[in-house]
Amino acid sequence: MGPGNPKDSEILKHAEEIGMQIASRKWVLLTGGRKAGVMDAASKGASEAGGEVIGILPGDSHRGMSDFVSIPIVTGVGSARNYINILSSDIVIVCGMGLGTSSEAALAMKHGKPTLFTKVGKSQLDFFQSLTNKKILFFDESDALFEFIEKNLIKD
Amino acid sequence: MGPGNPKDSEILKHAEEIGMQIASRKWVLLTGGRKAGVMDAASKGASEAGGEVIGILPGDSHRGMSDFVSIPIVTGVGSARNYINILSSDIVIVCGMGLGTSSEAALAMKHGKPTLFTKVGKSQLDFFQSLTNKKILFFDESDALFEFIEKNLIKD
Amino acid sequence: MGPGNPKDSEILKHAEEIGMQIASRKWVLLTGGRKAGVMDAASKGASEAGGEVIGILPGDSHRGMSDFVSIPIVTGVGSARNYINILSSDIVIVCGMGLGTSSEAALAMKHGKPTLFTKVGKSQLDFFQSLTNKKILFFDESDALFEFIEKNLIKD
Amino acid sequence: MGPGNPKDSEILKHAEEIGMQIASRKWVLLTGGRKAGVMDAASKGASEAGGEVIGILPGDSHRGMSDFVSIPIVTGVGSARNYINILSSDIVIVCGMGLGTSSEAALAMKHGKPTLFTKVGKSQLDFFQSLTNKKILFFDESDALFEFIEKNLIKD
Repeated sequence: MGPGNPKDSEILKHAEEIGMQIASRKWVLLTGGRKAGVMDAASKGASEAGGEVIGILPGDSHRGMSDFVSIPIVTGVGSARNYINILSSDIVIVCGMGLGTSSEAALAMKHGKPTLFTKVGKSQLDFFQSLTNKKILFFDESDALFEFIEKNLIKD
Repeated sequence: MGPGNPKDSEILKHAEEIGMQIASRKWVLLTGGRKAGVMDAASKGASEAGGEVIGILPGDSHRGMSDFVSIPIVTGVGSARNYINILSSDIVIVCGMGLGTSSEAALAMKHGKPTLFTKVGKSQLDFFQSLTNKKILFFDESDALFEFIEKNLIKD
Repeated sequence: MGPGNPKDSEILKHAEEIGMQIASRKWVLLTGGRKAGVMDAASKGASEAGGEVIGILPGDSHRGMSDFVSIPIVTGVGSARNYINILSSDIVIVCGMGLGTSSEAALAMKHGKPTLFTKVGKSQLDFFQSLTNKKILFFDESDALFEFIEKNLIKD
Repeated sequence: MGPGNPKDSEILKHAEEIGMQIASRKWVLLTGGRKAGVMDAASKGASEAGGEVIGILPGDSHRGMSDFVSIPIVTGVGSARNYINILSSDIVIVCGMGLGTSSEAALAMKHGKPTLFTKVGKSQLDFFQSLTNKKILFFDESDALFEFIEKNLIKD
C-alpha cells in the first residue's frame, strides 16, 4: 500500500523493488490496482519478475487500471475497497504515506494484520506508534524487510 | 453463480463440470468462495482441472472457505459482495436458482454482463425474461453453453 | 423498493400512496434515494404527508437525489447499497418489479425481512414463491397491505 | 468521529458536550452508532438535548447499538462503513484519536470534507498536517469549534 501520487520518485523505485522481491518468492502481490504511484510501480516490479498481481479496483470497470494487474477485482465500492485490500492481505507493506495510505495502514493495524513500514518519516511512524501498544515495524531497506518477513511472519 | 444449498444433486454435478470446462480453457473461475453448494462444486471442478479459482468471500476471514479456492478475496462486506462478484466477472453463468443467486443474476443483467442460465426452470427463466428486452440465454447442456461463449462472447 | 423507471404510471401513483400511508402512521420511509421512479414517488408521498424520508444513495454525492429525501445517506458503494437498504429496513414493501428491485426483494427474503409485494404480476410472484417455503405476501390494495402490517408485523 | 475505547474520560465528556451543541443548533449528529466510547457519548449528548442521531452500524443487526441512536442504518459492511460515515457527513469533527478514527479522519480529508480536530495531541495533528497542503483545523474548546463552523462552514 502506498500513495497514488508520491512526492518522491525514490518511493516509486523502492515500490518496484518490493514488487520484484514479492514475485521472486512466488508470493502474490495485492494492490489497489490503479495506474498510479506506488500501486503501479509495485505491480510493474512484480509483473516483470513473472509474478501474479491482484488489483482491487475502486471503480465499477477496468478504467484506470495498472497495465501490470493480472487478476483485476472490480469492486465498485470506491474507497470502501481499502478495507477489502487489508482483509485480503496476509501481510501489509506500507511504502510511503498519504491520506489513502494512512487510512489503510490504520485499518491494517486495527484488524491485526502484520504491518511493515518503509519509506515513511520518523514523525509519521511516531503517529502510528502512538495508536498501538505493539512495536511499529520499520525497515529502511527492502532486504531487511523481507528477511524479517521470512524469519517472523511465514509459517512453514 | 448458484445456490449454496441446492435441492438437487444434479446441479452440483453440473457445476463441477462447468468449473472443469472453464479451467480446461485456461479461463479463471470466480465464485462466492464458500465451502457450500454450487460455489464449492464449481471450484472443485476447476481446481482439479488445474485452474485458478478466485473466491470473493462475504466474511472478514478465511473461515468457511472452499478448499478449492486458490485466490481468496476477503471482503468483510457480507452479501454486498454479490455486487463485486458481478462487476469482477466478464461472463456470468447462473447454475441453479436461489435467493442469493437470483439477486446476483438480476445485478448481472442490470450491469450489462453477458448472463447465461443453466439448470434453471422454465418459469424462473420467464421471470428474468420479463425484466429485460434482450433474449435470455439458456443452455441445457454445458457443451452448448461453452460453444455459445466461444462463438459469441470471446474476443480474439 | 421499486423500479427507477417503471413502465406503468399506475405504479408511481401507488408508490406515492404507500409513502403517504407510511408517513401518516409516523413511520419512517427508507428508499434508494434517487430522483427516479418508485423511490421518488414514495418519497414525495411521505414528505408531503409530513414524514421523514431516509435515502440510501449509491453515489458519492447528493447528485441525482430525490427532492423529498430528508435524511440522505451517501454510501459511495454503488448497487452494493441495495444490501444496506434491506438490512436497515424493518419491513420491506416491493412496489413494481425490475432488475434492481428483484435483487432487493431476493436479499430481503434471504435475510429474513418481512417482505410484502404490491403491483407485481402473478408469474413474477410465482418466481419468488419458488425460492421459499414461506407464503409470499401479496396485496392488491394499500389498505389491505397496511392492515396486514399493523395486525401482524408491528409489536406494541 | 472518535475512538470506541478512549484512554481518557475527559474525551467522553467533551464528546457529550459536542453532541449537545450539535443538537442545540438543530443539526443532525451522525456517528458509527455503536454503544462505545465517543460514538455513544456524543449520541447521548445530542439525544438528551432533543436532537436526531444517525448511527451507521458496521454489523448486520442492531446488536451493540448505542441506546441514543434515533435513526439506525444497518450496513453489514464492517469497517467499510467508515467510508459511508464520511461521505454522509457535511462536516467531520474528530474527537480523540485511535486506529479507526485515524482512518476516518484521513478519508474525510481525502474526500474534501471540512475536518475539525479536537482532543487530539500536537504530534498527532502534525501527522495529518504532513499529509495535506491545507491548514489543519484544531480547536481546544467546543465553543471556538462551533463558532468557527458557524462563521465559515454554514451556508445561509
